[in-house]
Amino acid sequence: MDDTDTPDVPALLRGCRDAVTPALRAAVARLDTASREQAEYHLGWVEPDGSPGAGGGKAVRPALALLSARAAGAAEEAGIVGGVAVELVHNFSLLHDDLMDGDRERRHRPTVWARWGAPSAILCGDALLALASEVLLEDPSPHAPAAAKLIATTTRELIRGQAEDVAFERRADVGVDECLSMAAGKTGSLLATSAAIGAVLAGAPEHTVRGLSEYGMAVGMAFQLVDDLLGIWGDPAVTGKPVLSDLRSRKKSLPVTYAVQRGGAAGRELAAWLARSGDQSESELRAAAALVEQGGGRAWASAEARRRRDLAERALTGAGLVDGPRAELVALGRYLTDREF
Amino acid sequence: MDDTDTPDVPALLRGCRDAVTPALRAAVARLDTASREQAEYHLGWVEPDGSPGAGGGKAVRPALALLSARAAGAAEEAGIVGGVAVELVHNFSLLHDDLMDGDRERRHRPTVWARWGAPSAILCGDALLALASEVLLEDPSPHAPAAAKLIATTTRELIRGQAEDVAFERRADVGVDECLSMAAGKTGSLLATSAAIGAVLAGAPEHTVRGLSEYGMAVGMAFQLVDDLLGIWGDPAVTGKPVLSDLRSRKKSLPVTYAVQRGGAAGRELAAWLARSGDQSESELRAAAALVEQGGGRAWASAEARRRRDLAERALTGAGLVDGPRAELVALGRYLTDREF
Repeated sequence: MDDTDTPDVPALLRGCRDAVTPALRAAVARLDTASREQAEYHLGWVEPDGSPGAGGGKAVRPALALLSARAAGAAEEAGIVGGVAVELVHNFSLLHDDLMDGDRERRHRPTVWARWGAPSAILCGDALLALASEVLLEDPSPHAPAAAKLIATTTRELIRGQAEDVAFERRADVGVDECLSMAAGKTGSLLATSAAIGAVLAGAPEHTVRGLSEYGMAVGMAFQLVDDLLGIWGDPAVTGKPVLSDLRSRKKSLPVTYAVQRGGAAGRELAAWLARSGDQSESELRAAAALVEQGGGRAWASAEARRRRDLAERALTGAGLVDGPRAELVALGRYLTDREF
Repeated sequence: MDDTDTPDVPALLRGCRDAVTPALRAAVARLDTASREQAEYHLGWVEPDGSPGAGGGKAVRPALALLSARAAGAAEEAGIVGGVAVELVHNFSLLHDDLMDGDRERRHRPTVWARWGAPSAILCGDALLALASEVLLEDPSPHAPAAAKLIATTTRELIRGQAEDVAFERRADVGVDECLSMAAGKTGSLLATSAAIGAVLAGAPEHTVRGLSEYGMAVGMAFQLVDDLLGIWGDPAVTGKPVLSDLRSRKKSLPVTYAVQRGGAAGRELAAWLARSGDQSESELRAAAALVEQGGGRAWASAEARRRRDLAERALTGAGLVDGPRAELVALGRYLTDREF
């Protein structure tokens, strides 16, 4: 792609969010009073005092769904219901994850469970998951059932990743491949489906859907690798998290797992440090970060992120995509994975 | 219906359970390792020590789904995937309800959250909900998407009922109509859908589906009314619950709500008793039960249960159903709502 005509990704994201939001709002408006209030707050549409909210996240998944439809030669409109569905599934998983992880804040606001209690977060998440299926199955597209089936299998993958994450926390011997597979479930699967669902709804041929799905999976994996690097070496001013935050919480992230498993003496020292409990001083956290680096975790994760990003771009070639939206997908992939670390 | 040829309901239930279980087992076998282990335990197929389980509940919902297909003139097989789906949704709701209610035991065994922790119960429930949609959308029936859509809207109703239940616990002024609407969501909606889904999968006409759905809703409401009566006046040897258990837990059940709202002086005394906290002696619980009775709650709930049961049977008339399965539906409805109290 020629750098001189690089798409403006933030404008692209805003445009896609604006295109999907009315349908998303109409879907959420069907929920029971309590779930609706909680979902509208969680999505950033309403502030705790009832005033209109500043809006939620970047809506990356709806943007992928709309680009997916356009890349397959259909109108953006064909992807809107897919964008609604993937955003609903994403927020179902956030509501349940915040509760399971005990996180009391998201984007500097109390999480739903912290504000309304655990039962509300469970029910509101359940409601959004069921709603994703409902909106798709109401769509007149003859391909809507295939899209709904894709959403169901993706949710199973998402849960597999999350369940493995829960199980891995109790294990000291998690391998790099297991950890990559967990990330493919937790992060990759829904991005893969977001990038494919517009094409599915448009009735695109198999190789087009597959190429878009592979692109989304590879972008998701690259994103996760970069996120894990930022969790150790990211600038708190940029990430919004405390310095060395993933080491502070003893998170078995990808670079940490790599160093422990394949990092020789430094890896063994890191494993021993991880097994010790209690808060650590910043100098100890810095020593642990140095062990991840000596054990090769930083270099491996950086190289792997680059490899997956290249893979994503290659997956779009030969998938029979329309040029303009394909260039936008490339730019969006780079935007998501080119963060500084 | 002639009493001399009354169907043998326990045998009917066993037969339906045996017909649905292989497909249900195959569906659960797709889940990730952890969710599968938890689901197989929850469903009663595996004991805590890993030995084969005695089996789970009576599988009323799968039985309704199979009868629904047969009543619409199709083969029982047409309803099997519907039976799997409603049983998955039922167990999704049990897993999440046990956690929300803090119930540590179900059928004299530790609940999933009590055994594996809250995150496991959340994820396992989520997985069963997604699986319900997945199995339906894989079914070759051209009517499977309509059945999947019915499952999605039913789940929304189920959640509405549960969310209202959570909200009502904090309110002292819950009306009888609100309470009936909550029960329609929590109990009626999934029974209505169980009784209709086989006909939907068989492509039955609208009035057949509607009659079966109305039957299931009315049976569900009658069942809930009887269950609430048993929660106060049931014999612990039969119900398996402590004597006066719903008063002990200050549950705002239907007879209690009726007495509080429409029971005059006895109702006001009951409301004052409900507002007082702390454990009560059995004699105090018996006095409260007497107030429910004096306030008309017992007589109203009994009459209302009978009325709904009659309504259920009438809904089956004129729905164009096959005689044999219709008689079995009548017998199953009576079996579920004729419990002693």
